[in-house]
Amino acid sequence: MAGIIPSRRVRGTPFSAGVQAANPKAYTVYNHMLLPTYFASYQEDYHHLKKYVQVWDVSVERQVSVKGPDAANLMNMISPRDMNNMAGDQCYYMPICDDNGGMLNDPVTIKLAEDHYWLSIADGDLLQFLLGLAIGKNFEVEIFEPDVSPLAIQGPKAEELTARVFGDTVRNIKFFRYKKLQFLDKEFIVARSGWSKQGGFEIYVDGTEYGMPLWDAFFEAGKDLNVRAGCPNLIERIEGGLLSFGSDMTRQNTPVEAGLAKFCNSPNEYLGKALIEKQKREGPDRIIRPISIDGSDDLPHNANGWKVLSNDKQVGLIASATWSPDFQTNVAIGMIDRTHWNPGTILNVDTGADNRSAVVQEKFWI
Amino acid sequence: MAGIIPSRRVRGTPFSAGVQAANPKAYTVYNHMLLPTYFASYQEDYHHLKKYVQVWDVSVERQVSVKGPDAANLMNMISPRDMNNMAGDQCYYMPICDDNGGMLNDPVTIKLAEDHYWLSIADGDLLQFLLGLAIGKNFEVEIFEPDVSPLAIQGPKAEELTARVFGDTVRNIKFFRYKKLQFLDKEFIVARSGWSKQGGFEIYVDGTEYGMPLWDAFFEAGKDLNVRAGCPNLIERIEGGLLSFGSDMTRQNTPVEAGLAKFCNSPNEYLGKALIEKQKREGPDRIIRPISIDGSDDLPHNANGWKVLSNDKQVGLIASATWSPDFQTNVAIGMIDRTHWNPGTILNVDTGADNRSAVVQEKFWI
Repeated sequence: MAGIIPSRRVRGTPFSAGVQAANPKAYTVYNHMLLPTYFASYQEDYHHLKKYVQVWDVSVERQVSVKGPDAANLMNMISPRDMNNMAGDQCYYMPICDDNGGMLNDPVTIKLAEDHYWLSIADGDLLQFLLGLAIGKNFEVEIFEPDVSPLAIQGPKAEELTARVFGDTVRNIKFFRYKKLQFLDKEFIVARSGWSKQGGFEIYVDGTEYGMPLWDAFFEAGKDLNVRAGCPNLIERIEGGLLSFGSDMTRQNTPVEAGLAKFCNSPNEYLGKALIEKQKREGPDRIIRPISIDGSDDLPHNANGWKVLSNDKQVGLIASATWSPDFQTNVAIGMIDRTHWNPGTILNVDTGADNRSAVVQEKFWI
Repeated sequence: MAGIIPSRRVRGTPFSAGVQAANPKAYTVYNHMLLPTYFASYQEDYHHLKKYVQVWDVSVERQVSVKGPDAANLMNMISPRDMNNMAGDQCYYMPICDDNGGMLNDPVTIKLAEDHYWLSIADGDLLQFLLGLAIGKNFEVEIFEPDVSPLAIQGPKAEELTARVFGDTVRNIKFFRYKKLQFLDKEFIVARSGWSKQGGFEIYVDGTEYGMPLWDAFFEAGKDLNVRAGCPNLIERIEGGLLSFGSDMTRQNTPVEAGLAKFCNSPNEYLGKALIEKQKREGPDRIIRPISIDGSDDLPHNANGWKVLSNDKQVGLIASATWSPDFQTNVAIGMIDRTHWNPGTILNVDTGADNRSAVVQEKFWI
């Protein structure tokens, strides 16, 4: 495994000092920023995440700020979700598409005001799409990346830890809702959200200078909770069916193919609606499925996606796969053709190193 | 130095097998793809590049294909360069800006036909900007990323090596011009260009399946030329003043500030023109300058940019700096305020590890 060289282009974060002190073993790059991929090992991190609490530097979830008189017009144009029903304190997971329904990103959108939204983006410069649209439509709206870096607190002890830092009021925050809560001299958005199924919060740290003080506050408050630095965990997120844009689905896929049809309910003529509505009526040609792959825990690393075969014909692609210690099988996320997507269907996976039998599952492992 | 984990999201390239066999010591990530940063060492790579010839996997220079009846309209809208004078076989280096002149990318644009362009992009999803613009303007144009991966042949022996593979006709290709030349059963664009000052070519490899056969052909043909796998070299590119978008300049800068005013000559109302023309008339507030930094060759790694100070007041930022063996000084690229940009001005650089004296230079080290 060759190393990674940071630069101004591949940025550090407000929490980099804390992350580096915790000694991550590997990184990836996400939105031009460093993101740790594991600390002790995938499996040790996984067991710890499911039992205790972790602090994740997810600054890589950069915000695209959409602000101005036409902000709602732009959001209505891109959002497959019905924005009319969005509460003032709500976070919306939102597939965003081109005019043919090809996915461009899947941010979590926060409504700060009627004329101000933050889109917390997956890997990819969605800012450029919104900027191009706004200029092309002559919308009066400002599109920029603010100095806002999410810090996630995840795991069964996350509520206790977050309450110790932000007060017991965090216990009343509902799933995908937020409150503005004070730390030092400033209020931050604290949302019950995060890229794990273990529960927890994301704090939208507005101002680099608050990064390390808040990081340190969580570690100080969480000593007896066995708090550790962590990061999104490959095993846990595949078990839970949390999709990685760019891996599990790309612009080649629609939200319906990504299993996100339920998020496409806007009455507006949003981008991609025609194809999305057609696929909702008729079914797509392929869809995301949980797949269990037979054999032992020695799967090779899946760097480019593995072909899924049936009678030597390709019927799908697996972009994410790993051994699950808790479920004692190899868990995977595959994009599987309509002809072979029924639960129970037996498939073959070419891992490059070997061929393995695999079975389409009914549900993810939650 | 922690390692980097590839995934379908952080992609390999058509040449990855060749690159990996050459054992790069470190990578960066650029346009969601792996890019080696050095093989033997920055300095060994540098000396070799200046004396022999290297084959660079620069697949990371992804192409944005702009094709359709409105392709020229879209290009006229974004190009600060006068597209009317662009010859059919020409490559245009092209800063691209938002409506306030903030740089979004600096691709090399190739004209394939009157209604078809490829933009060979720097790090950043410029595709999303063009797609947003095209949708917003209701342009009839297709915006997509083709399966095209540039391979660069760079160094004083590059012409000899490229002639051995593509024929002596390559010797007649002028700077930033291209010819379509055959390899196996297909014609490829071969341009005299590349991100070094040592001369050479870039082959736009159209089709992943041609990647390794072409890679192997260059290494087979170049044995007696001491050909090696290489990559853009930090030392050589700073000496030559080759700018890295995202490091040396960002959306916070205009092309005039980046020293690219000469590329802003379009008679059309392109995006950012008002501010760019104003800065051309009145001068910008800051500009890119070559800077030599005093002291020995033990500069720390510049990961976030270094403040440039004068009497303890910040007057600039250095994003790129390293020791130059050939010029026996630390060479750097800085964005320096108007008040301190005159050649000969003595400045102070805070490297984090120490404070060093520095001098604004008249020219880069070419």
